Amino acid sequence: MKKLVLVFIICSIYSGHLVSQNMLAETYNLMPWPKAIEENPAKFIINSDVTISINPDNNGRVRNAGINFLRRLSTRTAVFLDKGFPLKNEKGNIHVVFDTVSILGVENDESYSLAVNDTSINIKAKTDIGAIRGLETLLQLTHNDETNYFFPGVSINDEPRFVWRGLMIDVARHFQPIDVLKRNLDAMASVKMNVFHWHLTDDQGFRIESKVYPKLHELASDGLYYTRAQVKDLVAYADNLGIRVVPEFDVPGHASAILNAYPELGSKDGYDYAIERFSGVFDPTLNPTKDFTYEFLENLFSEITPLFPDNYFHIGGDENEGKHWDESQDIQEFKKHHSLKTNHNLQTYFNIKLEKILNKLGKKLMGWDEIMTPNMPTTAVIHSWRGENEGLKKGGSLISAAKKGYHTVLSNGYYIDRMLSVEHHYTVDPIGDAQLTEQEQSRILGGEATMWSELVTPLTIDSRIWPRTAAIAERFWSPQNINNVNDMKKRLKRVSFHLEELGITHIKNRDVILRGMTNNQDITSLIALSKICEPLKVYSRNKGGIEYKSFSPFNLFADACVVDAKDASDFNHLANNFINDSNRPNAIQVLSYLKTWAMNHDDFVKLTKNPKIKPLQNLSKTLSEVSLILHETIQNKSISAKNLNAVKNYIEILNEPFVDVEVVIVDTLKKLTAYCEMSYLSN
Amino acid sequence: MKKLVLVFIICSIYSGHLVSQNMLAETYNLMPWPKAIEENPAKFIINSDVTISINPDNNGRVRNAGINFLRRLSTRTAVFLDKGFPLKNEKGNIHVVFDTVSILGVENDESYSLAVNDTSINIKAKTDIGAIRGLETLLQLTHNDETNYFFPGVSINDEPRFVWRGLMIDVARHFQPIDVLKRNLDAMASVKMNVFHWHLTDDQGFRIESKVYPKLHELASDGLYYTRAQVKDLVAYADNLGIRVVPEFDVPGHASAILNAYPELGSKDGYDYAIERFSGVFDPTLNPTKDFTYEFLENLFSEITPLFPDNYFHIGGDENEGKHWDESQDIQEFKKHHSLKTNHNLQTYFNIKLEKILNKLGKKLMGWDEIMTPNMPTTAVIHSWRGENEGLKKGGSLISAAKKGYHTVLSNGYYIDRMLSVEHHYTVDPIGDAQLTEQEQSRILGGEATMWSELVTPLTIDSRIWPRTAAIAERFWSPQNINNVNDMKKRLKRVSFHLEELGITHIKNRDVILRGMTNNQDITSLIALSKICEPLKVYSRNKGGIEYKSFSPFNLFADACVVDAKDASDFNHLANNFINDSNRPNAIQVLSYLKTWAMNHDDFVKLTKNPKIKPLQNLSKTLSEVSLILHETIQNKSISAKNLNAVKNYIEILNEPFVDVEVVIVDTLKKLTAYCEMSYLSN
Repeated sequence: MKKLVLVFIICSIYSGHLVSQNMLAETYNLMPWPKAIEENPAKFIINSDVTISINPDNNGRVRNAGINFLRRLSTRTAVFLDKGFPLKNEKGNIHVVFDTVSILGVENDESYSLAVNDTSINIKAKTDIGAIRGLETLLQLTHNDETNYFFPGVSINDEPRFVWRGLMIDVARHFQPIDVLKRNLDAMASVKMNVFHWHLTDDQGFRIESKVYPKLHELASDGLYYTRAQVKDLVAYADNLGIRVVPEFDVPGHASAILNAYPELGSKDGYDYAIERFSGVFDPTLNPTKDFTYEFLENLFSEITPLFPDNYFHIGGDENEGKHWDESQDIQEFKKHHSLKTNHNLQTYFNIKLEKILNKLGKKLMGWDEIMTPNMPTTAVIHSWRGENEGLKKGGSLISAAKKGYHTVLSNGYYIDRMLSVEHHYTVDPIGDAQLTEQEQSRILGGEATMWSELVTPLTIDSRIWPRTAAIAERFWSPQNINNVNDMKKRLKRVSFHLEELGITHIKNRDVILRGMTNNQDITSLIALSKICEPLKVYSRNKGGIEYKSFSPFNLFADACVVDAKDASDFNHLANNFINDSNRPNAIQVLSYLKTWAMNHDDFVKLTKNPKIKPLQNLSKTLSEVSLILHETIQNKSISAKNLNAVKNYIEILNEPFVDVEVVIVDTLKKLTAYCEMSYLSN
Repeated sequence: MKKLVLVFIICSIYSGHLVSQNMLAETYNLMPWPKAIEENPAKFIINSDVTISINPDNNGRVRNAGINFLRRLSTRTAVFLDKGFPLKNEKGNIHVVFDTVSILGVENDESYSLAVNDTSINIKAKTDIGAIRGLETLLQLTHNDETNYFFPGVSINDEPRFVWRGLMIDVARHFQPIDVLKRNLDAMASVKMNVFHWHLTDDQGFRIESKVYPKLHELASDGLYYTRAQVKDLVAYADNLGIRVVPEFDVPGHASAILNAYPELGSKDGYDYAIERFSGVFDPTLNPTKDFTYEFLENLFSEITPLFPDNYFHIGGDENEGKHWDESQDIQEFKKHHSLKTNHNLQTYFNIKLEKILNKLGKKLMGWDEIMTPNMPTTAVIHSWRGENEGLKKGGSLISAAKKGYHTVLSNGYYIDRMLSVEHHYTVDPIGDAQLTEQEQSRILGGEATMWSELVTPLTIDSRIWPRTAAIAERFWSPQNINNVNDMKKRLKRVSFHLEELGITHIKNRDVILRGMTNNQDITSLIALSKICEPLKVYSRNKGGIEYKSFSPFNLFADACVVDAKDASDFNHLANNFINDSNRPNAIQVLSYLKTWAMNHDDFVKLTKNPKIKPLQNLSKTLSEVSLILHETIQNKSISAKNLNAVKNYIEILNEPFVDVEVVIVDTLKKLTAYCEMSYLSN
């Protein structure tokens, strides 16, 4: 009965206030939150006797996951396990059963059940993929008290809401070596994501070896590309984790690098094509009127597609402004001749030819939402990315694509490179309150977080993807009504920490950057600053793409800072509490932060200055001064007009973006100042 | 004249007190220290105009090094360079000239000269390898003041003392993925090391794909092996850095993994061969009496050697105790039949057959010093590893090998896995005061640091190799009389920090481990403890190899601790100063540490305990208590008999190794206590 009630409450779509889920979420740091969970009083102690068995026992994904499970469990608990590998021909106290081995695809069943009892744990699934999802959930259940690590008694029945739960990584703007991708695949699997969308080409580089057209990697990559062997290795690695790999070759725009290698494919004769070093939208575009273009792409895709067993193949298709088409006499004539009125029509002509090539190769064509033109067949898959930011309506083109009959995937709202809060992304629902038929709904495959790499390097990419993407993963997996932001944030803290255990560098690399900035001096004062600063948002860090080149340094203060700056969000919360009720306990919490910041500049000035630290001096000093006055004010419940004025001036200084960050306590400081003015201003 | 004098002083072998070098070393953090350096008043400002040109301009090693130089310079200085690549057909303000492209080998010329002037920098070398060594030196010269980064005016003439400056990494006991090796190759090149010795096979794993004998990687690696493509990629990566790759296939002993795959090669019929999970010396040994053994090795080596262009091929040959040979009737009869009296004779028989196979394949045989038996031809290369620890004389077999006519390489004294101080390794000289003819001396090729991996994983290996190996690299490169330990330590601090910039994880991964131990609580108190603790030394952490298996956790407190624990060495120094002269300034320095440790336990007790932290409680508490009393004692210049007794008891507790570390301030605490007893004991 208890079970039924819980399942009912959790699954109930109209339950706005999920008491039970939140109660459970206090105890369990699961992410994504499962479809149904029930507690029992059991406690499975993790000691050296833990063993795992798998049925059927083969050398496939579940065995691999089982070994990794044992390693990670041992790492997490420091327990010296007797058996380092799944048992053969013997039942382990963790027993995993599944029916079939999957060939990855959108039809895959990923459901599983998990039951923890005192002395045994059972994971059951229809497929091997379900089984490995269940192992990830079990690992997230690791608890401890003073003397033991243990798994608490629970029964879980789980399955995903969407079949497409992706992360796109752009390896063109900044190349990301295989080990960076592998650790991110590990992280994806740990939050049950199942699509890695590999954005392999763009103006800044063509990142894959070609035997057929070797100038592509020779002249269009600066030597930074994946060999065929590396691609195969990565695809196999992902497959082992139950992650599909969808490659993207962005055409006909975003083609500067390709055209540096093969200018004969270009739309503009005699144009001086070169690998692009800046960011933005550029003119070089493939020529859709030449037979050679299609011959080239067919040969290239014929070579490349066997490396990618997945059915889907992404052709980009975005941001082609057609400037070079307009400037070409031949192309203009071609358009007239074929009654193609607009450049959109011409691009559709191109896309339809590409679709035929890809279909011959057994692939479905997928493209960014610009490809959704009136003539485009509904066999194409629409990747919805544009939204309010691009002058379209919120939620982008997803719903209209589904209504028009296209299968579709949402990225609008999940652009993690825009440096917006986890809350922002978490509260974007792919369907929201749209009224869709069941068939229309089934066309919405899911979504993808997108990591465009103009401003990230292997040093910083993890801190731009994680932990926010874990919350997006939950949006794609968990029921729509799992949407309590505070609850998510609480669980995300633990998930974030466990991502570091998996090898994600988002925590540790902050200090690497700050040590570099100080020439290895004491970085305490810079850490304090970094915890209230966030990198400039929505591309304002690199307005128009003209400040940073691909080879600019990306180990600056802004690169050490992350979205959802920790101290800022704590302080903002505490200060609001204080403004609502200025009792002594609330005051003490606010005073504690103000005191830290007031004193911080004393540490900062001790640093031997260099050209990298110097620009922070004003930030440090101003923060210190404003904090000092506000501290005194709240302590003494009194502020002079002069000090009030000074505070306001200081806040204005902090309000200006500099060194590419914004100080994200400014609004709260303003509110606090207004409160002080109202409550404490002396005559 | 100035130049001549400097060169004279620096090169002078009998100059015990190198005033000039030390004076210069105060300014320049070069490591390895160059053969000759001279200052001039120039200052080359590093700004966006820095450019680099290379003559001859090709796509080889120097271009690769030039690009990396620009990236690293930009990272270090945060300067936004206008030109991200070496100039074509134009002279840069950094101009690199060399004569020939090297094929790597022991004959290579690595000399270079470097001259920094106000507006130009010239690097000249006979070979491309010399040129890239010069670029590393230039990068180490980066200086700054408050407003600028710059290269100070110097002229350097440099060349190595030894041609073989190696690092061995054992990837058998714990597999090390390609990215771990690549970052270590980067680090090696940054301190001008030129041999990567790849210990690819051992009882715990056979780590390379074989097409001829696929069971080797299938059944002898747990799936952790390098593909042929990865090996080629790594060798090419190393070659680009001027680093030779010498592979080691350890035979006939250390063969458990091989024999798990091909038991028919074994010396003992019916033996249950298995991949070894523990550490130590084991019995499974190839059978040197069967033709199949040689056929197998010839086929395998024929397949493998083309992947490794280097002339040298290491066959291990160590630690074969011949137990299985003694237990085999057939092998005993074979020995009689061939008049091979001892197992050493039998192994020499085996080695000589192997040498013929390798010679056919164009390779020189190299082996650990056990292969140096009376019948072994002097064409073999002797890798000297045994020394006092193994009952032989200090300095190992190196000198006798050279005298007997063998080329030889020294590792005795450079076993970095023994967890001994940097000073210990730095003060081992390959030749020392041995009296050798010029010819004998020329047979000493150089040395190798050895990173055996029983107790290291990808998480910790960097902190076991670095920074100590940089000091060993200096021993192999710099003149013999560059041997001032304090001076080395001072320069090593900067080198260590710059290794992090290159991607070495030795600094940042400490905190990863400590965060893991605390479930992501405030790790300040554990950091303080880690800075006075070192992992147990000389294999006492894993006595007999029986405690840790290859799949045991290696993210324990001992794994967060490193050799040359920072606070311990500072405190030991300061306490000695105080004992020598107990003036107030000296007292204050000691008191500062004692106070920190006295208070540290207050932070420690705030941690929510778990099974990983709990074992540290006693250490934290005892340290706090002893520090509190000593602090009071020195502050008040008085100690009671009772307190003195308490201190002595606490020190005894700290003196016992636990959680696999030793507290390396214990001796100093004892001395300090003795001093307090003598000076401050009240009646």
